[in-house]
Order: sequence, then C-alpha cells, then structure tokens
Amino acid sequence: MSIRVPFEKLEDTIYKAFVKAGMPEDKARTCAHIHASSSADGVESHGANRVPRFVDYIGKGWVDVNAVPEKVGSKGAVENYDGHTGPGITNALFCADRAVELAKEHGIGLVTLRNTTHWMRGGTYAWKMAEKGFVGISWINTESCMPLWGSDEQSVGNNPFCMAVPRQNGEIVLDMAMSQYAYGKLGVYRLAGKQLPYPGGFDKEGNLTSDPGSIEESGRILPTGYWKGSSMAIVLDLIASGLAGGFTGSDMDDQNKGSCTNCCQIFIAIDPYLAGTMEEVQGKWDARVKRADEAHPLNEAHPVSCPGEGTIRRRKDNMKNGVQVNEEIWAEICRLAGVEE
Amino acid sequence: MSIRVPFEKLEDTIYKAFVKAGMPEDKARTCAHIHASSSADGVESHGANRVPRFVDYIGKGWVDVNAVPEKVGSKGAVENYDGHTGPGITNALFCADRAVELAKEHGIGLVTLRNTTHWMRGGTYAWKMAEKGFVGISWINTESCMPLWGSDEQSVGNNPFCMAVPRQNGEIVLDMAMSQYAYGKLGVYRLAGKQLPYPGGFDKEGNLTSDPGSIEESGRILPTGYWKGSSMAIVLDLIASGLAGGFTGSDMDDQNKGSCTNCCQIFIAIDPYLAGTMEEVQGKWDARVKRADEAHPLNEAHPVSCPGEGTIRRRKDNMKNGVQVNEEIWAEICRLAGVEE
Repeated sequence: MSIRVPFEKLEDTIYKAFVKAGMPEDKARTCAHIHASSSADGVESHGANRVPRFVDYIGKGWVDVNAVPEKVGSKGAVENYDGHTGPGITNALFCADRAVELAKEHGIGLVTLRNTTHWMRGGTYAWKMAEKGFVGISWINTESCMPLWGSDEQSVGNNPFCMAVPRQNGEIVLDMAMSQYAYGKLGVYRLAGKQLPYPGGFDKEGNLTSDPGSIEESGRILPTGYWKGSSMAIVLDLIASGLAGGFTGSDMDDQNKGSCTNCCQIFIAIDPYLAGTMEEVQGKWDARVKRADEAHPLNEAHPVSCPGEGTIRRRKDNMKNGVQVNEEIWAEICRLAGVEE
Repeated sequence: MSIRVPFEKLEDTIYKAFVKAGMPEDKARTCAHIHASSSADGVESHGANRVPRFVDYIGKGWVDVNAVPEKVGSKGAVENYDGHTGPGITNALFCADRAVELAKEHGIGLVTLRNTTHWMRGGTYAWKMAEKGFVGISWINTESCMPLWGSDEQSVGNNPFCMAVPRQNGEIVLDMAMSQYAYGKLGVYRLAGKQLPYPGGFDKEGNLTSDPGSIEESGRILPTGYWKGSSMAIVLDLIASGLAGGFTGSDMDDQNKGSCTNCCQIFIAIDPYLAGTMEEVQGKWDARVKRADEAHPLNEAHPVSCPGEGTIRRRKDNMKNGVQVNEEIWAEICRLAGVEE
C-alpha cells in the first residue's frame, strides 16, 4: 500500500535519516532532496525505496560520506575526477555541474568520474544539465546483472544511459537501462500475480519467458532489444571505464561489493544554441514534440507522449497531493530518522 | 545468389559507376571505397546494394555531387556545418575528421552537420574516429519509418546510433538502429519463407508478430526494446536537429523526398587517454573484452562476442577470398559503370 506524504516532510525525514547515519548536513540535505524528488517524479524504486539500502551501505563502509571528488586530470573541455567512493548523488551532481561550466566555455563539456557509488536515479543528472539549458548525456557502468547475448550467466551490467533535451516547455528525458525490465519490476509483477506484458528474460531451461518468478530464479534478465541492448551495454562499460580510468563491470564483479561501488560515470553537456538561436531551436523542438504527441494512437485512450512528459505530470500531482510512498518504506525511513510516522 | 568479387575490382567498378553518374573523381573514389568496405565488412545492405539507389538519387537531384560542407558556426570544441545536400559519405567523413581534430586540441570534439544526405552504413564514421585512436559517437535523424510506441502510424525515424572503442586489438563498435529489424531484413526473411527469430512488428490488426510479410504490409516495425527504442529515437531526433539547426524527422516527412535527404548528423570524438595512460586503458579494454568473450555460452558452438569482433573476422575473409556481392546487384553496378561483368 502507498500513502501520500507531503514533499517537505518526506525530504526532511530522509535528511534526518542520513544525518543520523553520519552524513554531513549539507550532503544529507542534497541527497534527501534528490531521493524525495525521484519519488515525486514517480521513480520510487530509486527514490524513497533506496533510502534504507543507502544507509546500510554507509554502515558497511561502502560509501564514504565525507569524500568529495578530486580532479585527477583535465584537458580543454574535459575534466577527470576520482570520487573516492563518496555519496553517488553528491559526486554525480558535482560532475554534472562541472560539465555545464565546461560547456559554457567550450560549447561542449565532458566530465568523467571513477570510484564513485550508486547515483540512484540515472536520469537525475542529464535532467539537471537540461534544467540549466544544456543538452545532457550521461551513463554509468555497473557490476554484471544480465547475461550478454548468447550467454547464460550474468556477464554485463544494465548500464543506464540518459539523454536530456532542455526544452523550455518541459524537458524531454531518456533514462534507459540496458535490460528490458529491472529486477525490481519483476518483483512487482510477481507479487501482483501477473505475467510481464512482454518477455523479460529466460527461465533456467533457457526459454524466453514472461513469467517474472522464473526470471528472478534464473537471474537471466533480457537485454532490451535482445542482442542490441547487450551490445550497447558492453560498449558503455568499455567507454566509461576507459575514459574515467576506473573499474570495468568485471572489476566490480571481482570485488563483490554492493550495487555500483567503485563504478564509473560519464557526463556530457552541450550548448544547444550554436547552430540556431534559442527561439529557433525551441520552436523546432516544440513542433517536433507536438507532432510526436499527435501521432495517431493505437488506443484513443492512450495518446502518444515523449519521455519526460509523463514524469512532469506525475511530479505536479505528487507536489500538490503528496508524494506516493510505500507504507513499509515510510515506516522504515521514519525509524532510521528517529521520528514518529 | 552471391558471388565473390575481389575488393579492388568491386571498388573500381563502383568508382566508375559514380563517375559516370557525374561525380567528381576524388569524391567518387572516396564513396566507392566506403561502399566496397561496407560490403567487405558484411554490411551489404548499405554497401554494394545501395549503389544503384545512390546513383538514382544523384539523377533526381537529391544529392549534389559537387557540394562540400560549409562551416556555419563554431565555439571552442564545437563546429557546425551545412552539408548542402552533398554526398552523405564525403560530408560525414569530413565531419568525423573535424571532430577528431577538435578532440586533439580540446580533449573532446563535437561536429554537427545539417542538410546532408544518407551516410550509408552508420557505423563507418564512429569506426573511422576509433581507427584514429579516439572514442567515436555519432548518430543521424531520418524521416519517419516506425510507429512511436503507442501509435499505429510511422511517426519517428529508426535513427541509427553508433559508438566505437579504439581498441588496438580490434575496434569494438556499436551500430544500432532504433528498430528491432530493418525493412531490408524483413524482406530477406520473407523471400526465404522464414519467420523472424523474435517479434519484429505489428500486423494490420495491431498484433505483435514475427511474420515478416505482415509487418511489411502494415509498415509497423517494432522499436527495439518496445518503448525504449521509441523513446531513444525521438530524443536522438530532437538533439540532432537542435544541435545541427536542421531538419527534424517530421520536417523530412513533410518534404517527402528519399531516404535521409536533408537529415542531421552528430559526430563526437573523445581522447581516451586523459584519465589513464594508453597502456592502462588498452589493457583494461583487452581484459574486459576477454571476460565478455569468455562468458559461459548458452550454446557451446556459439561463443559470446563483442560488437565489431565478428565484423573484423568477416572483413579478413572477404579481403582474402573476395567480397560477397549479390549477383543481380553486381550486374547492375557493372551496367551503371559501363563495364563487362
């Protein structure tokens, strides 16, 4: 069951939980804001739901709450950082900001980050770059959680890839993991006693299946687009680890820690107004989004929309009516914060 | 039926066909080399097979064989060009080269190109950047050929996206259209009387199907990964058209010309050795590719491989034993070149 929690209350309670876990106040404030905002955007899986696990990782020493990114290289429009396993959110926000500053000077900016930790919701950082008026591109490598195409063992990460368009009438944002479904989504379907709408992985016998429980059992989630998502996942891993000078997915597998510990991240910001004026480019984007949204729908009740449009609608609703939070998660966050529910 | 044609003979015959169509000799030489190389790499669909259509487009005036890219803007690590509907291959090669030159100076280089024409095989340009030692990223927007997710009409391009890793022991290259299968592939399966290995689109009644003929009839190819490829396709269109200041996919739909006329392209080159030495980065990549290739295979007869590895094997075979070319295509190229088969 979900309940509605006012945004400020959710944010403040998460903040208290993080401070209690030992986080400096400024970082706790920033991280709490991002977790609460992800839930407000409808991405609960990487918002409120991740708070207990993040606190657990701090306790295990996998996240150094005091670490900040250190510059380890730079050239022209590029800067390279070591995250020293600091909080994934504050490390990544710092790097997204730096990419924007570099893009202001050079037209494009690239920031690489190694030895960082889980950035929670991938789309956050490309979206932040877009809010500042820049095209944003970012991705991460993760430990293996998916079989490469043609394999029956987990051998590549689901390596989320994000692209954001700074449209003034609402950002358009792609936030796409390389698996067709997240493991979290499989659990949701299994608990509801439902089959997936489309095949989402292989069972233990190697048959493609829509049965969430069989996929959870085999650990063999399907790359999005079969061989395509598999190919893109390994290439994203190679580029991220190479450019950042950090761990590959296999290196993370070998250290056998929790999700994304010591991962690499890439942040690219681009000035969108070098080949056209702001008015021209925004007009072009508005016209294209309108055409997409007006594409004849398969089902009149479900009009087509561009990625990000639904998110903004959910955000407005959650900010007005309270953020949807799973009841048990909320109880756990309150416990971690040492406050009454 | 395919025959084997020595690479030099294939290249020279395509060259003669292009010169006869009115192309300047230097451009004809370059384009012939790329078409022949794509076939040698096993990508016949955008190699030899495309020669007759390209000659047709020259005849229609859709490709200006004399045009060269004109710089229309620049800032720091970014340059913007207008392709003046010159040959897609020479325009794109020029821009990929410029991106590499910018990356040498600034660590990263971005070149945008508008009003260009079909670049044939998408992977060519990212691969060229990788051959020069740089990470290459490139994409294109096309006219609509695929329904957006939730629509039953063609409303977005299949917008190929490419990423290349400059591994010295063999480039790793992603060349991925946003549709699960190309229309060309559907035809191949239909003519062979085969079903697709996985669903590839919808029939006229809106049912997901693996029957190639039903999909050709409906024109409703499936985005790769369902909603994911659809979302990525529209975002690639928005970013390409915005950054290049050129046509969106809808703008191309409205002018109703042939494939990709007046499209936009993006070229990004990145110096891979800013956060690690060449030795470190290459060693990291070799180790990761080895781990991927050694992932336990589903079928012992089909080991896992990374994208590009199979291409390089095919290239070696075709360069040694002659390039596989469809017999009828070869006859047509010879006719266009005015030479005996």
